[in-house]
Amino acid sequence: MDNTSKSKFVLLTGGAGYIGSHTIIPLIESGYEVVVIDNLFNACKGEGEKPVSILQVEKLTGKQVTFYAIDLLDYILLSEVFDKHEFCCVIHFAGLKYSNESCNIPLNYYKVNVCGSINLFQVMMEHNVKRLVFSSSSTVYSEPHFLPITELHPVGQSLVNVYDKSKYYIEGIIQDLCNSDKEWFVIILRYFNSVGAHSSGTLGEDPNGTPSNLMPYVAQVAVGKIQSLNVFGKHCSTIDGTGVRDYIHIMDLAEGHVSALEKMQKSNDSGAIAINLSTGNGYSVLQVINMFSQVSKQEIKYEIVDCPNGYCDSSYCDASFAKEYLGWEAKRTLKEMCEDTWRWLSLYPQGFSTTT
Amino acid sequence: MDNTSKSKFVLLTGGAGYIGSHTIIPLIESGYEVVVIDNLFNACKGEGEKPVSILQVEKLTGKQVTFYAIDLLDYILLSEVFDKHEFCCVIHFAGLKYSNESCNIPLNYYKVNVCGSINLFQVMMEHNVKRLVFSSSSTVYSEPHFLPITELHPVGQSLVNVYDKSKYYIEGIIQDLCNSDKEWFVIILRYFNSVGAHSSGTLGEDPNGTPSNLMPYVAQVAVGKIQSLNVFGKHCSTIDGTGVRDYIHIMDLAEGHVSALEKMQKSNDSGAIAINLSTGNGYSVLQVINMFSQVSKQEIKYEIVDCPNGYCDSSYCDASFAKEYLGWEAKRTLKEMCEDTWRWLSLYPQGFSTTT
Repeated sequence: MDNTSKSKFVLLTGGAGYIGSHTIIPLIESGYEVVVIDNLFNACKGEGEKPVSILQVEKLTGKQVTFYAIDLLDYILLSEVFDKHEFCCVIHFAGLKYSNESCNIPLNYYKVNVCGSINLFQVMMEHNVKRLVFSSSSTVYSEPHFLPITELHPVGQSLVNVYDKSKYYIEGIIQDLCNSDKEWFVIILRYFNSVGAHSSGTLGEDPNGTPSNLMPYVAQVAVGKIQSLNVFGKHCSTIDGTGVRDYIHIMDLAEGHVSALEKMQKSNDSGAIAINLSTGNGYSVLQVINMFSQVSKQEIKYEIVDCPNGYCDSSYCDASFAKEYLGWEAKRTLKEMCEDTWRWLSLYPQGFSTTT
Repeated sequence: MDNTSKSKFVLLTGGAGYIGSHTIIPLIESGYEVVVIDNLFNACKGEGEKPVSILQVEKLTGKQVTFYAIDLLDYILLSEVFDKHEFCCVIHFAGLKYSNESCNIPLNYYKVNVCGSINLFQVMMEHNVKRLVFSSSSTVYSEPHFLPITELHPVGQSLVNVYDKSKYYIEGIIQDLCNSDKEWFVIILRYFNSVGAHSSGTLGEDPNGTPSNLMPYVAQVAVGKIQSLNVFGKHCSTIDGTGVRDYIHIMDLAEGHVSALEKMQKSNDSGAIAINLSTGNGYSVLQVINMFSQVSKQEIKYEIVDCPNGYCDSSYCDASFAKEYLGWEAKRTLKEMCEDTWRWLSLYPQGFSTTT
């Protein structure tokens, strides 16, 4: 394995998105030169070529980020980016991400997520860039067979939505790629529920339409954009009857990517290695609501409703492998997750469109 | 569901290949107008535009087959074919098909098989053609948990090669497509081991390089192109210690596709329905060798060697659902499979390149 490359150039696909844009900050702080490609499908466009999220990152870091408005499905333009820069690694965030939507337009999801990834891997191969950090999801575990969920938990069983399946398929393709060529080294990061925002309050999640995840939803109720929240619960076998999930602060998640990159620079490992990225702590929906209410000093109206069929009571991970292998662990508390989300939404109630 | 279309035009992707070309014959005999697209990646080219397999079919049937040398990954050219013809149905054979090769070049396999299928389905959707027969494989079942294998047998577990995984992924995508749009009606045919040739001896399997399946291999030994055969065995818990598989005559398989098409024309069903296509009878490797030796009157040299790790002793299907749902069952015997293979190889010892 060629470990001598001194390149500090990192390509972030989908780097204008929520997780991608936050990850740029600790990457720059760690001395990496960041190149972003994004098709801007979900991004709020700023002045000039760059999306607002990237402009905000540049303000926060005082550094320029090289940006290309490119779609992963465009093999030729993608190749040209690899011709221009010698990358040490690619962090692959790009993809369509809404679970509900994915079931309505499955072909779009598979084309963008799966075929986009295959294109990227082929271009990487052609340019001899064989180190990759891949944004996977804890949803590949489906309904947990045991808790906490370790990386050895079965994956791919009874997956119901297309988004989850697309992530599972890409993991499978990565595994085959690594089996076929021992020079590849891929760290697959299985995120749990990423929430929060940069502590400056100037960078955060900018979802399209009504949010489908809990924290942005709670925040929208707190800020008065949505009246009330339906909470699945009463009958879960959890501390208060509502579902328990494992939340991770976006900046902890961002730093996890830097740790993965550092590992790739230092280690002679190869193959595909899957790692849970979260805190390992579960919080119930009511605990999240109460904490959010406390930090925002807003009443958050909610109504307890019956759980839908197949609703999972409790899901949280064993985060010990990330600590052991990457030397990384999440540091930020639920309180900080709520505080930073609230600061972001107070400053940018309309998300990035506030700034334009 | 629009069941009023009187179009008898059927599109066959990969229609120049082994299964595709044989399927054209009973389709034409049943009154269908056949349009073939094929990228000719595995096909022997004839005079003019058409591959030899298609020219042979035209001789056998006395009918012209419309042919386009098009790759499924070419969205625009594929769309133009759908603009030109109003198809009642697509039979999707196209794909890379060599298990061993698939593990060496996984990205090529996933791109051609998975992304090619996604492209096809998108073009079909745009042209409101929502009836599909898909060539899947019994290999999606992996090592059988029980015998005979019914369609309810688990799929996708512990798949080891990329070809098998690509078929499993496409089945998953088809399922999601049918869930998202109730107008789709897809029959997924899970083939077991297709062997034999057209009884005329002028159309058969024309594999590239050394064959990896038993029957073509045995035939090559009989014809003197290969000296001897390694047979996994001694210790299988089968009739003679060698592996048992379920073989189906290519013309039976071809007729199964016509039955699937007839079902689609007559039925108001929708959704994705998987069907085993084979005889339901298992034959051991030695039984196949002995039968082939008997019909060819050639000695077939073989050596019994240890089974590789994970070698499956026995695999055969429950073929009753095909009979019940399609009104189809395989009729041809192992003897006919061997006779027809032998006739084809005697007439065309170099495959189709004999004719050029």
